[in-house]
Order: sequence, then C-alpha cells, then structure tokens
Amino acid sequence: MKQIDFYKKLFYPKTLAFIGANPRRVWHLNGYINRFPKDSLYIVSNYCDDLKENFEELLQGVNLCSEISEIPDGIDHSVISVGRKRLLETIETCLDKKFYTIHVFSAGTGEFDEKGFEIESQLYKLFKNNENSRLVGPNCMGIYSPRGKYSYSGGFSEKAGNFALVSQSGDLTNRIVGSLNARGAYFSYAASVGNSISLRSSDLIDYYNKDDNTDVILSYMEGFSQFRKSEYEGRKLFESLKKNRKPLLLLKGGTSDLGKRAASSHTGSLASQDEIWNSIYKQTNAIPIESLEELLDTAVMFRFCSNCEPKHNSLLMITYSGGSSVLGVDAISRLNAGIDVPAIQEPTHSKMKELIRVGSISNPLDLPGLRDEEKRFKLFKLAVSEEYISGIIQLTSGPRFFGRSMSKEEIEKYYANLRRSKETCNKLGKPFMVTIPNSNDNDFRTKLIELEIPAFNSFSRAAKAFSNLYRYKNPKNPRILHE
Amino acid sequence: MKQIDFYKKLFYPKTLAFIGANPRRVWHLNGYINRFPKDSLYIVSNYCDDLKENFEELLQGVNLCSEISEIPDGIDHSVISVGRKRLLETIETCLDKKFYTIHVFSAGTGEFDEKGFEIESQLYKLFKNNENSRLVGPNCMGIYSPRGKYSYSGGFSEKAGNFALVSQSGDLTNRIVGSLNARGAYFSYAASVGNSISLRSSDLIDYYNKDDNTDVILSYMEGFSQFRKSEYEGRKLFESLKKNRKPLLLLKGGTSDLGKRAASSHTGSLASQDEIWNSIYKQTNAIPIESLEELLDTAVMFRFCSNCEPKHNSLLMITYSGGSSVLGVDAISRLNAGIDVPAIQEPTHSKMKELIRVGSISNPLDLPGLRDEEKRFKLFKLAVSEEYISGIIQLTSGPRFFGRSMSKEEIEKYYANLRRSKETCNKLGKPFMVTIPNSNDNDFRTKLIELEIPAFNSFSRAAKAFSNLYRYKNPKNPRILHE
Repeated sequence: MKQIDFYKKLFYPKTLAFIGANPRRVWHLNGYINRFPKDSLYIVSNYCDDLKENFEELLQGVNLCSEISEIPDGIDHSVISVGRKRLLETIETCLDKKFYTIHVFSAGTGEFDEKGFEIESQLYKLFKNNENSRLVGPNCMGIYSPRGKYSYSGGFSEKAGNFALVSQSGDLTNRIVGSLNARGAYFSYAASVGNSISLRSSDLIDYYNKDDNTDVILSYMEGFSQFRKSEYEGRKLFESLKKNRKPLLLLKGGTSDLGKRAASSHTGSLASQDEIWNSIYKQTNAIPIESLEELLDTAVMFRFCSNCEPKHNSLLMITYSGGSSVLGVDAISRLNAGIDVPAIQEPTHSKMKELIRVGSISNPLDLPGLRDEEKRFKLFKLAVSEEYISGIIQLTSGPRFFGRSMSKEEIEKYYANLRRSKETCNKLGKPFMVTIPNSNDNDFRTKLIELEIPAFNSFSRAAKAFSNLYRYKNPKNPRILHE
Repeated sequence: MKQIDFYKKLFYPKTLAFIGANPRRVWHLNGYINRFPKDSLYIVSNYCDDLKENFEELLQGVNLCSEISEIPDGIDHSVISVGRKRLLETIETCLDKKFYTIHVFSAGTGEFDEKGFEIESQLYKLFKNNENSRLVGPNCMGIYSPRGKYSYSGGFSEKAGNFALVSQSGDLTNRIVGSLNARGAYFSYAASVGNSISLRSSDLIDYYNKDDNTDVILSYMEGFSQFRKSEYEGRKLFESLKKNRKPLLLLKGGTSDLGKRAASSHTGSLASQDEIWNSIYKQTNAIPIESLEELLDTAVMFRFCSNCEPKHNSLLMITYSGGSSVLGVDAISRLNAGIDVPAIQEPTHSKMKELIRVGSISNPLDLPGLRDEEKRFKLFKLAVSEEYISGIIQLTSGPRFFGRSMSKEEIEKYYANLRRSKETCNKLGKPFMVTIPNSNDNDFRTKLIELEIPAFNSFSRAAKAFSNLYRYKNPKNPRILHE
C-alpha cells in the first residue's frame, strides 16, 4: 500500500470542505471561498436556505449542502466548526468517508472542563493509530497555505514566502502572520494546532525542515498534549529539533509559574517540564525566544540579513540624539546578551573627529544636525569598516523631520544614502539595521521594506535580533548530533 | 532690591528675542513666530535682507534687526543660535543689555573637545554669582511653554496641560512631548537644559513643585555639570527631591558602563556617582524609571488614573487570546516588580464558569469569541469586584475585528461597554487599562483618549505602569523628611 502524503493533502489540497458554516459568522469563510477553486470547495451547513438567500453572490459556484453525506468521500482537507455536542458524531462521519486531514476549529474540549476532557479523550482514540486520517486541533484556527490557495483568515496575504509557522495559539498566529506581512516577510505555511492531539508541532517541524518552500521556521509552543506521556513527546520534539537544519525561532509560553497555570487553561498543555526545554535549548540549534516582539524582530532579521555573517556580537550605533544613545546602550546592557558596543579606535577616531563640529565620535556615534550626506557617508564608511564592528544600527527619523519637511531632492538623496549604507555593510557581511522613533510612519516603513532594510522600534530590540542572528551563525561549540 | 522672578521671565516672558536666525533653518523660528505676540518678538540675524526677501509673509509684524544693539535692553527671554566662535561675545553683549534669561542652543561646547571646554568654562564664569541673568544650556533645545505662548518646536501642541518636563536631552524632549501629546497628555512646561551650567534640573524641579499649573513632573537626567563638585550637585538635587510633593518620574541615563561613557560625550556629564542615585531612589518619593517607554507609559497612567487608589500590586488580565495571556503573564513575571496575577477564588469562580462555554475563568480571564456584551459585562463585574484585584488590563482589538468589521450599532455597544467598564473599576478605586494588538490604529487610540482610558502596547508595559502608580500610592515606609 502506498503511504499517504498527509502534508500534501493538508497544505496543497485538491478538495476542501467547510463543515458547520453559520450565516452569523460568514466572514469565517472568506479565506476559503475567495482563494480556493470553487468547484472543489464544499460547504456544509444547517442553514443552507439562509446562506443561499443572504449570501448568494459570495457563495456563487461553491458546492453548498446540508449534510456531510452529500459531499464526496476522500476530501483532502476539511474544517469542522460545530458545537462540542455534535463534534464526535461529525468526526466519525468524516472518518467513515475517509477524509484525509481534518481541522477541528471547535473548542470547549480538554482545556475547558471534565466534559470537554471526555470528548477530547474520545477524539484522541479515534485518531490514535489511524492510518487514513490526521487531525489538526482541536481548539485552534487551522491552516494558512498561500501556495495551497486557502487561509483560515481572509486577512492574510495571498503572497507566498519562505517562513513557516506552527503555533499552539490561534490569536498569536494572527498576530505573527499579520505583523510579519506588514514588515515584509511572507509565509509558506502557518498552522495553528491548538491542543494538538494528532498532528503535533514536532510533526510539522519535520515537514518544514524537508520542505523546499521553507527557509525559516517559527514556532510558538506551550507544551504537550495531556494524552501522551510528556517524556515521550519531549523526546520526539528533541529528535525533530536535532534533525532540523534550518533556523528555528522557538517561542516558549509558560516559562513562569503564572504562565504555566495560564497555559494549562489555554491548551490543556503540561508546560511544567523545565528540564526538557533546557536540554532542548542546550543541545539543538533552536533559537530560544522570550517574547512575541523578539520573535517578530528576529524573523525580520532573518528575512533581510540572512546572508550576513557577523563575526562578533558587537554593534555600532549611529544616532542624532545623545539622550537616545545613552538610553539605547543602557537598554542593550540590560539585555545581558553579551553584546558589545566598542569605542571607535585610533587612528580612525581622529580621522573622523576632524570631519565634525558637534556631536561625538565614539560609539554611539552621535551626529546631530549633520545634513551633508557626503560627509555623513564618509564618516559612516570609516566606522563600519572597522574589524571589531559586526553590525550597524542607525537611528533615523525618516524623511519627515521634526519641525520641517524635506524637499523632493533631499528625500531622494536621503534614500540613496540609506541604500548605499546598506550595500556597504552587507558587502562586509555586516547587517545594517535602522531604528525609527515614529514607528507609526507607515509610508516610511514601506519604503524601508522596498530597500530590504530591517526596521525596529528601539535600539535594544534591534540589538537582540542581531544577537540572535549572530549566535545562530556562530554556534559556540560544534554541536554533536547522534542521528 | 526686589528679587527677580526668573521663572516668570523664562516661562511667561513679555519680550522674546531670537539671536542668530538663519534663512536655511527658518523652520527653527516657527514655534516662536506663530505663537508669541509679534510686536514683542525680536529677531536678530546677519541675513536680514535674505530673510526679508524670502520669508516676508512669515516675518510680517516681527521686529527684525541685524545687531543685538538695536533691540531693547532687559529682554525677558532670548534664544542664542550662533556658532561657538561667536558665542562668548554674543553672551557678553546680552549680559551688558541685562537680558534676564538666556537659552544657548549652540553646541560644540564642554561635551565636544578642549576648545569647547574652554568656551564652556568662560560661560560658567559669566553666570556664576550673576544676580541679573540665568542661562539655559548650552547644547540644548530650550523651552516649551504653551501658556507662555512659545515653543522651541513648532510641532508641540498649543494646548496646555499639567505635566512639566526637565530633560538633559533635546531629542528625548521632542519624543516625550510628541508621544505624550499623541497619547492625550499635555504640558505646563518642557525644558531641555543640556549641559545645564547655570539653571539645573534641580532648580526647575523646585519651581515645578511650587507651580500651580503643574501636577506631575517628568525628568530625564544624565548627571551633573563638570564645573561644580558632584557631591554638592547631588546634595542639591537630593534636597529638591525631598521637598517635592508631586509625583516625579525620574528617568536616569547612564546606568550602565557603556551608558556612562555615552553620557559623558553627550552632555559632558559625570554620570558615575551611583551611590548618589541610589540614595535618591531610597530616600525620596521619586519614581525610578528605566526606559523611555516606561516613562511614557507611567505618565499616561498618571494622566488617566491618578485618582485611583490601588490597594495591592495585583492585576486582573482579561483576554480573548490564550497565547497572549500566557506570554503576558510570563513577561509580567520577568519584570520582577512584585506584581501578582491572583486566580479568581470561590465562590466567584463557579458563578462565572456557569456563564461561559469556552475559554477560561482563571486569571488571565480568557473569553474568546464572547460577543454577548451583557454577559461579558456580568463576568467583568464579578471579577473586578474581588477584593484582591487592584487593577484591570483588558486586551482588545478595538472595533476592527480580524477578518470582518462591526456594524455601527455594534461599535456603539462596544464603546458603551468600555465606558462602563472604566466607570465600574474607577468607582472601586481600581485603574482600568487596555492593551491593543494593532497599535497603529490611530482612530481607536483617539477614541480611547476621549474615554480617558490608558492604552498600552503590551500587558507587561501596562503592568509596569500600574505598578509604578501602586508604589507611589503605597510608599512602603512613612518617609522621614528633614526639612
């Protein structure tokens, strides 16, 4: 018997079913109806008449049925959105009809109460040792696959990229995909896997590691399903991470005692095995991430600077504001990430000092009011060429200047200068980053994406992302892999 | 002889002079020309003809002169923007003409090189024991006084408020005033004092403490002028802070070794007396602040919740996202600020659990997809009334919902619910805060300001601001003041 390629069916389905469509939540269908070939899309609902009457245009060409029995057997991917009372019978019908991959949106399961726990146990049994079907969930948002032409959210970009996400939180999936789309990074897949009783984070990581459309893997994890032994699940994850050959940004929720309690009510996960996670961080190349902001920033760093090879964990900071640089280095010191901000040494220091009348040639390099772009670039080139500098963060307010605006010519010069700054650094293998004070300036942010320059909200957030890239590129000790 | 009230002359001048106007930086004049009575404003420039020709409309009605000798004696406030070569002779002329308060914009002084140090020493001598004049600066942006009808920046609001700032960084002054204006907080004064060789931060704090237009004081400090003994300056500041009876948010730059180096090239300050700062934090009611973000967040907290009296350093978190709550409590734990997020106790827990079908009645209170505003408010009221809860942070995406939009009626209901949530909490003396995932939604932010609800970019930033308010309202030990 030929083995079923569940991931092909999950991410590149030829047939798709949405079971439990509700006219009051019709927006839930957007990411399926507007992207997937309509003649291969099946919508099953108790409210067919209502849907037909009120959403005729939207549903034109889609197969609309009132019973699962009316749709073909062997659907590649199906989404189940029914109340928990009807969940088990619905799933049993799907399994009878040999549906391949089934996403259970429904919650109120193992994470909620005793009754939900009972339902989830039954679900677990239905998929345990099941050779024909895999389940995503329950209690999750499901799948986004731009190349596979469907998305659980109508708000995600149709543009495909090389980032793959697996997450135990649906809302974080929304925020991660939404924020990274807005910062110029696009996805091969995102999978919100919730309580993950069948397909687990480690399964998806195995697939992403082998997949040609994926270069960077992101993961938000809380813990392991309560139906399997956590030692076993921990070992499975550990093996997956050891095999992995791609940058993998691992955001772990529930690192604090309060967080562990919250994780258990969120996904019913047992998040308390600190020793499992510690050995994962020590013995695999997974990049440990502490917060959502750090995850997004580090992803942006890999998006725009993955070809750089920083030799030292050391930065040059360039500012026009003394106060911001003082607070910036204070914050970088507080990160405790081993990041150095080395002073510019002689003879370069003296060469540079001759070129300015105010400010400071140290590090941070403080150049207030220097509007001569040629002189500015000369100073820049001298400083970034120093061997002990491995990455550059420049504070810039963009073409909007406090109290006045630039002419068209000045704006062009300004952007040309940013471009050559980036090129100069990248040729040396050094990332060029900017931090911008007015982070709501969306036009400027868009322009920076065009220039492929990573932008951050503060010096310390840029520094942390840089440091994560540096550590990934310079693993301290050769890792010993027992494969 | 009647003592001169320098602060009245500084913040509410009857006559104002700008010395060194340059046609290439004419935007620098905006905040003076557009706000101050023109017939009492004097502009002195070497480029009078150029200015007259090219900026006729702008300068209409203003007194434009080419020499300081042409303008009246005894100008209340003057701004000096000349190169450092001409600085000393210009100041001497101003002093001969008995100008009362003089702001030196010019940099390249003590913070820059030996020559600058020499100029600054001369300046220091000119103002030491001077009974007729005070200097602001050098190397700073100067004064913003909305009630006094002038501002060094044309970008600051003309609306006056009750926050007063004194800062050793001009750019941070820009960012603090600009960001807080955008978040609904307004100023009585802002003073960027730079190297502060004559008027110091402590002098301005003394004034703000006595001033009826000021309720909250913000300060960014790097250290003390290198021309006075730092022990003496430290004691002077210490005395000012002991006398102070208003909330004072103290952001200290140069807490790290790298930051100290940067501070010395920024304002020539000696920032290394850690023991001075430690005793200030221990023995005064100044609120120690670590970063710009924390300063802004805490200011917003005092803006909207200063009447609240939180009894415990404990929070209720309300979310619709399990992942965000797990990461939120993890981040709050990492703050090490002693903040508790206590679980909801019986019998309230059971009463609440009966009302929901998915989510979690714990703390964070996770209510995904609960769109019944009446039920939501019932749950809310039960939880916030618990004695051990002292502040509430609610995650809300605003009326824009991911994947769909609300009807006008729904939006009204949504805002009405926010309003009564705030009122319910405030009646109990508990702050009601929100955190919003899409922080670029400016319309929503504006609406929250109207509702007087403080908004933060993350749970942990809200929690830190809350904790600062809590600590101010509950000083652990009665302070002993030796006045």
